[in-house]
Amino acid sequence: MSNTESSTDYSVGPRNRVKRGHKRATYDRATVHAIIDEAYIAHVGAAMADKPMVQPTLIWRDGETLYIHGGAKNGLFQALAAGAEACLTITLLDGLVFAKAALRHSANYRSVMVFASARVVDDTDEKMHVFKGMIEKVQKDRWENCRHPDAQEIKMTMVLAFQMDEVSAKVRTGGPNDLEEDKGLPHWSGHIPLSLVAGDAIEEG
Amino acid sequence: MSNTESSTDYSVGPRNRVKRGHKRATYDRATVHAIIDEAYIAHVGAAMADKPMVQPTLIWRDGETLYIHGGAKNGLFQALAAGAEACLTITLLDGLVFAKAALRHSANYRSVMVFASARVVDDTDEKMHVFKGMIEKVQKDRWENCRHPDAQEIKMTMVLAFQMDEVSAKVRTGGPNDLEEDKGLPHWSGHIPLSLVAGDAIEEG
Repeated sequence: MSNTESSTDYSVGPRNRVKRGHKRATYDRATVHAIIDEAYIAHVGAAMADKPMVQPTLIWRDGETLYIHGGAKNGLFQALAAGAEACLTITLLDGLVFAKAALRHSANYRSVMVFASARVVDDTDEKMHVFKGMIEKVQKDRWENCRHPDAQEIKMTMVLAFQMDEVSAKVRTGGPNDLEEDKGLPHWSGHIPLSLVAGDAIEEG
Repeated sequence: MSNTESSTDYSVGPRNRVKRGHKRATYDRATVHAIIDEAYIAHVGAAMADKPMVQPTLIWRDGETLYIHGGAKNGLFQALAAGAEACLTITLLDGLVFAKAALRHSANYRSVMVFASARVVDDTDEKMHVFKGMIEKVQKDRWENCRHPDAQEIKMTMVLAFQMDEVSAKVRTGGPNDLEEDKGLPHWSGHIPLSLVAGDAIEEG
């Protein structure tokens, strides 16, 4: 399976094909990019000593590469560096959906799954590029307004890169899908949007 | 390892001991419960055909049992029902932390990890109890204001229960941990709170 940036959609193969809820599935590159770029964190899952581990971690995308960073002694990062396959799932929760029927209640969301093995980023220039990208994702121009990493900090921070080849997204929007026979019921149906909102900045020093 | 509701903390064993960032670690039952009860979703990780899969899904806690539900044909649910071990990670992103130094930027968050194998809930009364709990977590008294599941809907919906024995939490709050030698730098340091905010309800029918 291969993807080029010029194709609109990610290729669909056995690993990334969405099996359930396929009406919500999309492989559209722009949709996937927008979800990743809006989200701060991914939940990264892999096997550690044959048992599943799922950790939240900050993410940054550059083209078709997804980057995470963490302490070089982090057990999950070490397992990934040693070749463990990963599933990185990025979820934006957009709303709560109230249907006439209990089991048709749902959530609005946009989620992405990336299946990949990690490449350990050893090159200092690429590591610095990632540190800058992560910082500037959170706040534009911040890189020029903070102390840059020194050699020891760079060494102690592991950067992992995941090539975005096996990728899928699911998107649910709007109100409930009430059954025809439920539509006459008196219960309220609709949805309540949710959004992640920033409060006032608190200065510390 | 066993936990009783009368003990304040979860027992700490090899699987749930927090190895990195242990200053942020807690095993306090009340802290864990509050995180789970505030969050709508968990990211559930398990091996499917020997490869990791991480799916977001709604959660509800009853005492020391964590419940999820989904379509009976969902591949991850089927793997869990067949005995695959799970890691359920619940993350509340509370803020962005700006330090003087690039690599001391961080996030404020509260997260919980539950390591467990699933029990398939077959008993109709327990399933209905879970459906009611999930609905009422989102909106109090909603259960009495929607159509209850019929026999076919109950059958088509798989409910999985996870006993909360191997559990840990991590909590980060407040501003950056700037190094002493960085404190004189002119860069702004502090944090920006984030919260998930509900918008106005949109009625559909």
